[in-house]
Amino acid sequence: MKIAIINGPNLNLLGKREPEVYGSQTFEMYLEELRKEFPDVAFDYFQSNVEGELVNFIHDSGFTHDGIILNGGAYTHTSVAIRDAIAGIRTRVVEVHISNIYAREEFRHTSLTAAKAVGVITGLGMKGYALAVRFFLP
Amino acid sequence: MKIAIINGPNLNLLGKREPEVYGSQTFEMYLEELRKEFPDVAFDYFQSNVEGELVNFIHDSGFTHDGIILNGGAYTHTSVAIRDAIAGIRTRVVEVHISNIYAREEFRHTSLTAAKAVGVITGLGMKGYALAVRFFLP
Amino acid sequence: MKIAIINGPNLNLLGKREPEVYGSQTFEMYLEELRKEFPDVAFDYFQSNVEGELVNFIHDSGFTHDGIILNGGAYTHTSVAIRDAIAGIRTRVVEVHISNIYAREEFRHTSLTAAKAVGVITGLGMKGYALAVRFFLP
Amino acid sequence: MKIAIINGPNLNLLGKREPEVYGSQTFEMYLEELRKEFPDVAFDYFQSNVEGELVNFIHDSGFTHDGIILNGGAYTHTSVAIRDAIAGIRTRVVEVHISNIYAREEFRHTSLTAAKAVGVITGLGMKGYALAVRFFLP
Amino acid sequence: MKIAIINGPNLNLLGKREPEVYGSQTFEMYLEELRKEFPDVAFDYFQSNVEGELVNFIHDSGFTHDGIILNGGAYTHTSVAIRDAIAGIRTRVVEVHISNIYAREEFRHTSLTAAKAVGVITGLGMKGYALAVRFFLP
Amino acid sequence: MKIAIINGPNLNLLGKREPEVYGSQTFEMYLEELRKEFPDVAFDYFQSNVEGELVNFIHDSGFTHDGIILNGGAYTHTSVAIRDAIAGIRTRVVEVHISNIYAREEFRHTSLTAAKAVGVITGLGMKGYALAVRFFLP
Amino acid sequence: MKIAIINGPNLNLLGKREPEVYGSQTFEMYLEELRKEFPDVAFDYFQSNVEGELVNFIHDSGFTHDGIILNGGAYTHTSVAIRDAIAGIRTRVVEVHISNIYAREEFRHTSLTAAKAVGVITGLGMKGYALAVRFFLP
Amino acid sequence: MKIAIINGPNLNLLGKREPEVYGSQTFEMYLEELRKEFPDVAFDYFQSNVEGELVNFIHDSGFTHDGIILNGGAYTHTSVAIRDAIAGIRTRVVEVHISNIYAREEFRHTSLTAAKAVGVITGLGMKGYALAVRFFLP
Amino acid sequence: MKIAIINGPNLNLLGKREPEVYGSQTFEMYLEELRKEFPDVAFDYFQSNVEGELVNFIHDSGFTHDGIILNGGAYTHTSVAIRDAIAGIRTRVVEVHISNIYAREEFRHTSLTAAKAVGVITGLGMKGYALAVRFFLP
Amino acid sequence: MKIAIINGPNLNLLGKREPEVYGSQTFEMYLEELRKEFPDVAFDYFQSNVEGELVNFIHDSGFTHDGIILNGGAYTHTSVAIRDAIAGIRTRVVEVHISNIYAREEFRHTSLTAAKAVGVITGLGMKGYALAVRFFLP
Amino acid sequence: MKIAIINGPNLNLLGKREPEVYGSQTFEMYLEELRKEFPDVAFDYFQSNVEGELVNFIHDSGFTHDGIILNGGAYTHTSVAIRDAIAGIRTRVVEVHISNIYAREEFRHTSLTAAKAVGVITGLGMKGYALAVRFFLP
Amino acid sequence: MKIAIINGPNLNLLGKREPEVYGSQTFEMYLEELRKEFPDVAFDYFQSNVEGELVNFIHDSGFTHDGIILNGGAYTHTSVAIRDAIAGIRTRVVEVHISNIYAREEFRHTSLTAAKAVGVITGLGMKGYALAVRFFLP
Repeated sequence: MKIAIINGPNLNLLGKREPEVYGSQTFEMYLEELRKEFPDVAFDYFQSNVEGELVNFIHDSGFTHDGIILNGGAYTHTSVAIRDAIAGIRTRVVEVHISNIYAREEFRHTSLTAAKAVGVITGLGMKGYALAVRFFLP
Repeated sequence: MKIAIINGPNLNLLGKREPEVYGSQTFEMYLEELRKEFPDVAFDYFQSNVEGELVNFIHDSGFTHDGIILNGGAYTHTSVAIRDAIAGIRTRVVEVHISNIYAREEFRHTSLTAAKAVGVITGLGMKGYALAVRFFLP
Repeated sequence: MKIAIINGPNLNLLGKREPEVYGSQTFEMYLEELRKEFPDVAFDYFQSNVEGELVNFIHDSGFTHDGIILNGGAYTHTSVAIRDAIAGIRTRVVEVHISNIYAREEFRHTSLTAAKAVGVITGLGMKGYALAVRFFLP
Repeated sequence: MKIAIINGPNLNLLGKREPEVYGSQTFEMYLEELRKEFPDVAFDYFQSNVEGELVNFIHDSGFTHDGIILNGGAYTHTSVAIRDAIAGIRTRVVEVHISNIYAREEFRHTSLTAAKAVGVITGLGMKGYALAVRFFLP
Repeated sequence: MKIAIINGPNLNLLGKREPEVYGSQTFEMYLEELRKEFPDVAFDYFQSNVEGELVNFIHDSGFTHDGIILNGGAYTHTSVAIRDAIAGIRTRVVEVHISNIYAREEFRHTSLTAAKAVGVITGLGMKGYALAVRFFLP
Repeated sequence: MKIAIINGPNLNLLGKREPEVYGSQTFEMYLEELRKEFPDVAFDYFQSNVEGELVNFIHDSGFTHDGIILNGGAYTHTSVAIRDAIAGIRTRVVEVHISNIYAREEFRHTSLTAAKAVGVITGLGMKGYALAVRFFLP
Repeated sequence: MKIAIINGPNLNLLGKREPEVYGSQTFEMYLEELRKEFPDVAFDYFQSNVEGELVNFIHDSGFTHDGIILNGGAYTHTSVAIRDAIAGIRTRVVEVHISNIYAREEFRHTSLTAAKAVGVITGLGMKGYALAVRFFLP
Repeated sequence: MKIAIINGPNLNLLGKREPEVYGSQTFEMYLEELRKEFPDVAFDYFQSNVEGELVNFIHDSGFTHDGIILNGGAYTHTSVAIRDAIAGIRTRVVEVHISNIYAREEFRHTSLTAAKAVGVITGLGMKGYALAVRFFLP
Repeated sequence: MKIAIINGPNLNLLGKREPEVYGSQTFEMYLEELRKEFPDVAFDYFQSNVEGELVNFIHDSGFTHDGIILNGGAYTHTSVAIRDAIAGIRTRVVEVHISNIYAREEFRHTSLTAAKAVGVITGLGMKGYALAVRFFLP
Repeated sequence: MKIAIINGPNLNLLGKREPEVYGSQTFEMYLEELRKEFPDVAFDYFQSNVEGELVNFIHDSGFTHDGIILNGGAYTHTSVAIRDAIAGIRTRVVEVHISNIYAREEFRHTSLTAAKAVGVITGLGMKGYALAVRFFLP
Repeated sequence: MKIAIINGPNLNLLGKREPEVYGSQTFEMYLEELRKEFPDVAFDYFQSNVEGELVNFIHDSGFTHDGIILNGGAYTHTSVAIRDAIAGIRTRVVEVHISNIYAREEFRHTSLTAAKAVGVITGLGMKGYALAVRFFLP
Repeated sequence: MKIAIINGPNLNLLGKREPEVYGSQTFEMYLEELRKEFPDVAFDYFQSNVEGELVNFIHDSGFTHDGIILNGGAYTHTSVAIRDAIAGIRTRVVEVHISNIYAREEFRHTSLTAAKAVGVITGLGMKGYALAVRFFLP
């Protein structure tokens, strides 16, 4: 089983940025835990702050992987391009947000991309990624 | 570990209502699976079509249980009362929706109750309940 | 032929409440007339001020009756739960309003439930119920 | 008893236009049925695609007839002129729509003209006209 | 001096329609008074309930007359076509409304056509036409 | 003098829920104080989390009591049904809110029910009930 | 006959401010012309940039004069206080604007005060004041 | 105990303006009653139609008085300046409205100033001032 | 090949109206060029300022022609009737606008009719008609 | 003659993505046809999923080419940056969309970039590019 | 060089009001610093809580000074009168806000007056005034 | 002292693009002036048309520099990603716009990024950068 994890803008700051909201663990540290928890899953990890590069990677993994876990970050609320990318591929996408987007600024309450994903996990911290992996397990 | 599962309006029709959207399994059948999957968790299940009875049950379980899994159904989008109930208790709440609310009518894209929950799992089918249970596990 | 008539909140005040808008006849008195006018139809009548009990009764009659006549009263404009209930049953529903909802406050101009009903009769007074019965007649 | 039936734009295409929505019967064919069902009612029928001609005919029949049945078609949602015409005459108007306007595009959910009519029958197919006639019967 | 007076939909009902709002004088009666008050002005009068015929008459008088007085009635609030007609001619237009449009339904508070007119006189009754004539006098 | 006090959803949590907003006194404790302060007033107290039961109790006390003090809680902002109940009875209603609804989330700034009440007292804490009682005193 | 003319903010700059919009004549110069044109009318003129002083003057002249001509300037679009002042007096008010408010920024297209005036004259330049005077003449 | 009562625009017309809404008593007459009812309270009374003078008086009494009762009148709905003044002082403010602002025009349903006051009493007539005084009593 | 060209309101003023926007060529002159450019196409040309006559002509040509080129002019932005007419016929429609509707007033940025057309050509001047013809060519 | 064709996000999926909407031809295949149809035109083709790279290429070709054909894809509806780029160059831009944007989700009905282009061709499939080329031909 | 500094409502409370937002220095103290920093500039300082007096002072200094620095305070967001005053004078105006208006309540995010100023400095504390002075220096 | 200056999309066209709005000086030329004016400040300059690269550079300079001057250009109004980047770093950011964003199209009146900056300088031309530098000076 091959799963792509795609993180959007500012998630490279994890562990550094607003630790009271996101905790002090970097995503790379968390990825190690994830690999231990799911030894039979091959993970491809990609992070970019550039909207179009996220689109590119969704295209690249969208016909070869068994599942995509996407945390589009800020682009979740504004990107029609990512929405179209999700709609244009074959692999199913689960959208994940670390913090509860409904408990933050109002413009974060909507997701342009979610309608084309299978579903969304929001607010359950880093655990959200692990739960998304489990969704793809048979 | 004691977890309450609370289902809102029309979820008693599961297996009967719009099977192309929700599948043909009743929630009681699914609950049996859940109990097998998590033998160490004690589940309390409550379903009501009455908004105020959902509020009552949230009060009742909100100081005694280790976690609440709430599928508020239609009240998710309109109920300030349930939002206040979640805010007024001690137990943490994970909101679950079987279908992807972002892919249905626009009035289902917002959740009044989510801001007071820990987080939300939406669109991952019946599996969403199991994932929510895992969130509460240590 | 078996028809259920379901009246929502405050309609138990008919004959008492704002008689200049709704007339001074109680609904029970009117029901007698209806039974005389349609001797071959078996009527089940249910009134409740509780949104969820209306949902319950829609479920109860929604697989056994030949038609449902629903005056959701105030819930017409706010209830996603009743909308979902109508969508989840087999029996067709005709929505009836005694007064002309378009000639009252603006929030009464829309109906959340109507999209899932067959159609709506509004503003034709008590006669609206009789016309709805005729719709179900062959 | 003298009743005017007024049909607005595109209703001359009935039987031809989108038969899956409106059926394949022309209005003239239906009118014949109506005349048989109500032999004591004299019907005047008028159809036009021109908003102002509908206003003219409402004026013409609005002081001489016992009832007007108006299907304003597309103008229902945009015409202040027809609204004013209804308000300016003595005869009462019942608004009829063949399809359920609440189940179609959002701009069809409102009616500018309905506030000045007695009431509205929507979604009950051709039968809606017959029910409107019955409303005017003593 | 040659002035065209153009009245829109339902103004042919003046004296008949809602006399508590518009008075019981017909426009033809008022026109006689106007001709007496301004013996040196040649008046052309046109009334139609058809939006496009109003456009036609604006075209016809828009290159030959010294002034146009337009009471667009209901079309004031909805007609881009009349707005464009006013913008496309050479003669200046003064918009007149008999009743105070700001004191009626909210959709009457705006005027699509006024931006292309020289100005507007509203709420001053029949006198509004006479004041508009005076505006065009040298 | 007979006054009904009606408390809506979550007010049964008073003393337990968000004490930094609502204080730690239960409503029953406060009611005792009120009875001492107004020995000549007979108080009927009702609390429910069910919207329709609040409607029922408004009906029950709305023709027999000299005044109703209603804290509709969360339903204040969403319930057309309670609004209609207030409009349908004879007894005057004073709406009370313990906290200042204007200083909380934006959806609490409006009241659907207030237009049918005599008036509103908001933000003055438990004292608001006592002031409402005084309003009804001669 | 006694008429008050009240000019609001920035109208003291007339002849100085944006002459391409308002011309180069001061209001005082125009007032002289007006006095010559209507020798039988006693004019009281008041200008202030202070909203509350306009309210004061409306009160002062609102029970003693035969007519008030009010150009509220910028306050037209924002002042509930002036609206209430007009509603609270006995003298009728005609609202005048020199430029066509419908042809300028969108926030100038509405008038909060007009609903309480008899009517409005807008866009007819300085002549608008003279036409308003004529409205008050018998 | 020292309490300031501040009345905004048009409240000097009390007894004169729209008596069917506000009664025929002047505020000065009512103030006398108030002084009799609360002989131990020193009242300072200020009324102005000028927004900025209300701001001035709030500043003046905001550090010396035990309570401020403010009826901002029309400025309630539009004045950020008064809101800021209330936020900038030490004395607590209770907002009072004589009529029920929720039962009048829609632009009166919101209060810009209320969020910075302790609370609001609306619709309880002149009695509202007396109830506000009682709020400040120990 | 048989193509109908339908021009809406004010397009008869082409060459006369706002030449800085639309050029000084009349449509009849342009039609000659078109006939020369496409000698194998039979063109039917219709222009009307009346919305309903446009509907009529769409009906008339909508079952007999190989293509319709429609410049609905001002009705583009307001006519549900024309939208329904396009939906009700068999011939495909290409919508054309001479000027760039996105660069003009905001109410011209939307098209009610476009959703039922095949597509839209806007802003390419008279050339837009020729390009639309080419679309229908095999 | 030198023309640049610029395609935005996800258009690299053409032939792969949603073939029921966009057909199964890749853009490169189509480009060959275009080169054959217009042998005298030199085409530069650029595709990117990155908004800023589209801006870069618009800058690069905006002072050297005779025409730009831009299909901004998803960025059409959200990119102020591309709008500014079009406004900042000398070459004229024709906007092209393959599908009819008016017949898809509502957020696709508007174009931020179109106001700065010469015009738009939408819904005419691949043919839209060829028609745009013809627009630039003399 | 002659520069006018104009402060709007509540800025007289500086040093007293919400010191955590605005600091504890009075504006007069700051003005002394400013005079030392710019010994060659003659400063005229004016503060008022009255909107119309601010308009008056803008008129007074708007034809004689080399620059105006305006902190309109709360009126920034609501005053069309001040906007018109700025547009009506010759001297250029720089708008200054001490706190970052974008980081406070949403109604402070817009400025009605800024469009007529040269520009705006916001959020840079007292330093904002000094920077504005430098803008006017040659 | 180390200051980063970051310019967003299309600012590389400065001196070339719309010179009537932005002047004919390139930013590099201006940077030279700036370096002369502030010889003790080390400037790092970065320009990109790619949103994500701006995010990258904000990260890069956000923990090492004493101040960031950011002209986000078009992304100011649409980029949640840049907003989050500013919130995630330690260095303070001053937002600068060369033209007055309040005097241009309405979508430029808001800034998504400003709430997380210290403040904003807008409309003061190239001088705005120099003033921002001075803000960071002690």
